[in-house]
Amino acid sequence: MEKTEPTGEELYDLAKRIFPIYRSITGKGVRETLAVLKNVWNGLQIHEIASGEKVFDWTVPMEWDIEEAYIEDENGTKIVDFEENNLHVVGYSEPVDRWVEREELLSYVHTQPDQPDAIPYVTSYYAKRYGFCMTENMKNQLKPGRYHMVIRSRFSKGCMNWGEILIEGDMREEICFSTNICHPGLGNNETSGPVVLIHLAKWISCIRDRRYTYRFLFLPETIGSIAYLSQNLEHMKKHIRAGFVVTCVGDDNHYSYVESRKGDSLSDRVLKHVLKWHCPAFQSYSFLKRGSDERQYCAPGVDLPFCVFCRSKFHEYKEYHTSKDDLNFISADGLKNSLIVLQKTVSVLEKNRKYKTRILCEPQLGRRGLYPTLSQKNTYADAKTIQNFTAYADGCDDLIAVCEKIRQPAVHMLPIVDRLLKEKIIEVAEN
Amino acid sequence: MEKTEPTGEELYDLAKRIFPIYRSITGKGVRETLAVLKNVWNGLQIHEIASGEKVFDWTVPMEWDIEEAYIEDENGTKIVDFEENNLHVVGYSEPVDRWVEREELLSYVHTQPDQPDAIPYVTSYYAKRYGFCMTENMKNQLKPGRYHMVIRSRFSKGCMNWGEILIEGDMREEICFSTNICHPGLGNNETSGPVVLIHLAKWISCIRDRRYTYRFLFLPETIGSIAYLSQNLEHMKKHIRAGFVVTCVGDDNHYSYVESRKGDSLSDRVLKHVLKWHCPAFQSYSFLKRGSDERQYCAPGVDLPFCVFCRSKFHEYKEYHTSKDDLNFISADGLKNSLIVLQKTVSVLEKNRKYKTRILCEPQLGRRGLYPTLSQKNTYADAKTIQNFTAYADGCDDLIAVCEKIRQPAVHMLPIVDRLLKEKIIEVAEN
Amino acid sequence: MEKTEPTGEELYDLAKRIFPIYRSITGKGVRETLAVLKNVWNGLQIHEIASGEKVFDWTVPMEWDIEEAYIEDENGTKIVDFEENNLHVVGYSEPVDRWVEREELLSYVHTQPDQPDAIPYVTSYYAKRYGFCMTENMKNQLKPGRYHMVIRSRFSKGCMNWGEILIEGDMREEICFSTNICHPGLGNNETSGPVVLIHLAKWISCIRDRRYTYRFLFLPETIGSIAYLSQNLEHMKKHIRAGFVVTCVGDDNHYSYVESRKGDSLSDRVLKHVLKWHCPAFQSYSFLKRGSDERQYCAPGVDLPFCVFCRSKFHEYKEYHTSKDDLNFISADGLKNSLIVLQKTVSVLEKNRKYKTRILCEPQLGRRGLYPTLSQKNTYADAKTIQNFTAYADGCDDLIAVCEKIRQPAVHMLPIVDRLLKEKIIEVAEN
Repeated sequence: MEKTEPTGEELYDLAKRIFPIYRSITGKGVRETLAVLKNVWNGLQIHEIASGEKVFDWTVPMEWDIEEAYIEDENGTKIVDFEENNLHVVGYSEPVDRWVEREELLSYVHTQPDQPDAIPYVTSYYAKRYGFCMTENMKNQLKPGRYHMVIRSRFSKGCMNWGEILIEGDMREEICFSTNICHPGLGNNETSGPVVLIHLAKWISCIRDRRYTYRFLFLPETIGSIAYLSQNLEHMKKHIRAGFVVTCVGDDNHYSYVESRKGDSLSDRVLKHVLKWHCPAFQSYSFLKRGSDERQYCAPGVDLPFCVFCRSKFHEYKEYHTSKDDLNFISADGLKNSLIVLQKTVSVLEKNRKYKTRILCEPQLGRRGLYPTLSQKNTYADAKTIQNFTAYADGCDDLIAVCEKIRQPAVHMLPIVDRLLKEKIIEVAEN
Repeated sequence: MEKTEPTGEELYDLAKRIFPIYRSITGKGVRETLAVLKNVWNGLQIHEIASGEKVFDWTVPMEWDIEEAYIEDENGTKIVDFEENNLHVVGYSEPVDRWVEREELLSYVHTQPDQPDAIPYVTSYYAKRYGFCMTENMKNQLKPGRYHMVIRSRFSKGCMNWGEILIEGDMREEICFSTNICHPGLGNNETSGPVVLIHLAKWISCIRDRRYTYRFLFLPETIGSIAYLSQNLEHMKKHIRAGFVVTCVGDDNHYSYVESRKGDSLSDRVLKHVLKWHCPAFQSYSFLKRGSDERQYCAPGVDLPFCVFCRSKFHEYKEYHTSKDDLNFISADGLKNSLIVLQKTVSVLEKNRKYKTRILCEPQLGRRGLYPTLSQKNTYADAKTIQNFTAYADGCDDLIAVCEKIRQPAVHMLPIVDRLLKEKIIEVAEN
Repeated sequence: MEKTEPTGEELYDLAKRIFPIYRSITGKGVRETLAVLKNVWNGLQIHEIASGEKVFDWTVPMEWDIEEAYIEDENGTKIVDFEENNLHVVGYSEPVDRWVEREELLSYVHTQPDQPDAIPYVTSYYAKRYGFCMTENMKNQLKPGRYHMVIRSRFSKGCMNWGEILIEGDMREEICFSTNICHPGLGNNETSGPVVLIHLAKWISCIRDRRYTYRFLFLPETIGSIAYLSQNLEHMKKHIRAGFVVTCVGDDNHYSYVESRKGDSLSDRVLKHVLKWHCPAFQSYSFLKRGSDERQYCAPGVDLPFCVFCRSKFHEYKEYHTSKDDLNFISADGLKNSLIVLQKTVSVLEKNRKYKTRILCEPQLGRRGLYPTLSQKNTYADAKTIQNFTAYADGCDDLIAVCEKIRQPAVHMLPIVDRLLKEKIIEVAEN
């Protein structure tokens, strides 16, 4: 069996390869990124949908590619250059080649005034315009005079691409993980998601006796998930039991969780349980704080059981959607620990069944070597967890619910459950 | 269309006309009061039930009228006189004309010792007696000697009256408002209720495309609502969807709400929601703190969905049921703001339906001019409310429930709901 | 009718008779104890099950009796002697007669190091061994040299015994009380339980018009309840409506309650309600803190509605399972007040039915002498409880639930309920 546990450094190295590729919701950046991911694990399939196709209330946009973009002054000095930082151009800008006075130039310039040394990340996917982004400091230094705005971009009838991985298990019931591949040079949002998920997929493919089928989606945000849902909604509603939007998982700050619209799905329950024991100080957010593709998965009528897993959550950290969210903002440890949380989540899901104690009254644990034979107060600590599990395993609550009641991490119960099954003290009451 | 928005001063002027009329549960005071109200809005119908009629566990009392009542001393000086303040006589007193020593007189005198300068409001509807009310200070100044107690009252087989307004809407489902017209010279409890409700009725009669039918009741407290229920219970159980006892709504202190017995009816939900956004510091009371006609509407077997709306609640303010609850205790602003709360309540009820987003996945708000076309962080504030509404409008929750979830006042959502209906983004899932 | 209300002193005298009898899970100590209890009330039946019988996952152990047990030094001085304190021998020890060096002796000696002057209570029912218990102080004074370990005990194929009382009522539905008779010289755990329950049984036998049938069990802990359940489970599941494990009820500290596994059974509701009003500071424990026969009664598949009533709860007081839990730890007042709590519990259960107000709208309490006829504010206090009861008695909530809502102790409502039934203001809606 090949090695499936990557080090944090391996994850970070992959992030370094993906980060510089210029991505938008369509175009060659997306394809190049998917090719790098497929290189990590060959199970990735690449799909496309033609520009102009109607997907629910939306239309697949034209393919957009960009060659160069800059502003130069009268001396031919480049003030900002797309080559230097790909955030300098407003995403999906129309082409332009014009000399303008400083005042007019400023009407095309976007900055983040409250973070004067950060370049904001700005896009305009659904209205035709062009524009440039720079730091507030740089803007304030622009002298009067004429400036040359150049954007060599091109719209063409092409397609929109996404990646998909399907790893079959014993059951047709699916667990789904979804992330985005449309953001350009941003580290946490979104180089981290694809990096962590491609390695999670590889790891899952090596689990023996896998019960669930796993589906991974690497999508352009919003339009990508809408397009995917427009083609697969019926299948997803029938088969998906838990889904996770995985985004902003590269930094090493606190963990975050955004609940699904209904808040009580299997995904919510397992992720909250795992996080509570992995790192009790994790941050929990209402669905009112949604912002990524859970907006589509949980929409009325779609109603899929997706919640969101992040470290520093989108919209909640200062560096979000600026040039400060770069490779320094994420870390090897941050990526690795996010992967560990998802591995724990999968491990718990695989054994999350309703167990029932087969024996009426307490089982005699002593003769099975599971209980001390000498009774004196304060000598039971180790056996107590087993007793609690068998006292609450009534075939009505699943593993997660029982663990919540007996205040034990499900991850630690997994070997105990195996032992109790083997001893025929418990049985599976229901899948 | 006639002007339907009265000023606070108009409300207060009406209170000044009603306040001095001497009322009891039966008699000409009730009829005179109803006549004044009918003058404000002609839709008011006046009903009667004969003395001696059995109404559930009770009997309609004799009609009672009073000509004069006073205590005079040996010099012929009137110590207290009903002409001066109609609280000086115990309501529903038998006639009397006796000279007594001070000691005996005192056994017929009621005061409020903890408020020595207030005359208490005292009645004895269900046991025959007579008596006088005065301030504790006045009682303490009574010198030894003989006193003449005179009450010229008369019981007669007549009737008990009440007022009723029915304003029909598109549906037979009803919203009911109920107040009392049996209290004599008391401002908040109860000149304010009839004043606010007659103007609310007038205002509702001018709502276009009214969905609900509205019923207003102006009743003698307790026996009036029992009599009304004994005649109309079946109809009310079938049609009433929400009901409000409106009492003590004239002062300008905090707002109060008393929950229905079950606490979760439509009336509870809408009034709590409206008050929370109108004035978050409103005071909420358990049904254990009931005291007006909700005692009948919510009784076991009656089970109508009534809660109570007040400003300073009965039993909870010092001036309650004393001469201090007079025209100075209430105000133009107090009456007007109470009317506004009830208007908001009606407006929300009219649109409180289950809405469902018609579009799978998020609607493309941008091309409908409902969303900014340029995506940069922190630019979405205005559009967020629309997005939240469409993300939660799943056809299961009604408007109030969705607004609770998205933390928006339903009153502010009303024009947005109209716009979304017009854009065919949402539809009514159910009445 | 014989006197059925024992004084605290009578309860304590019974404890003094039972305390010195040496008990184990089998053997003559159990039979002697049951004989003393039967002497208090003749309704007690004594049952037996043969050694070696399979009961669910367990086997009834051999009968064990002990004649003497001691350690003597080379001078023939007895270091510890079973005659002096029956905790000195490990319960269910094998016989032994050996001279050993001090070092070897220590491997057979158990102490409670954190309580150096207490002898711990130690047993080894399910693994063959022998041993002695002494204080940590005594152990530290043992000089080097040889010691004679003597235990004259005997295992024999005999039986295990328990006591049972059945007091029939009008209904076959049962209330069950269960305690233990297997602990040797310990006061709170467990001389107190049998003392309180035998007197509770005697008191219940004198209740006129008893509705429920009552069952009392005096069992060896764990194996006793398992054996009993293995013979009676079907009957118990069909008939038991509420059950109480009564243990550690002799001291005069706070009251304790351990919830059933599901936490919302009739036993939980009634005991919590009674304790809240009897002594609001009672201590409430989760089922995770279980430890007595509720472990069997609430096991998955057994699912009987048992909670636990204690004073200082097992495992939660320092003296627990040591020689410090003696006759000084319990008191006449402690035993008597525990009995009072259980008597209140029975009284409430007997009248805990769903009542329904027979009259639509409020009943006219005045003409029945239940309400003051003069209405002035603050004069209603006494009548308010009656009004609240009739306002909430809707035939859906039982007495306990109504009392929780109107914030009154059910014990105080019992005579009021009788009066309202007699007046035909309420009726029983359902048993």
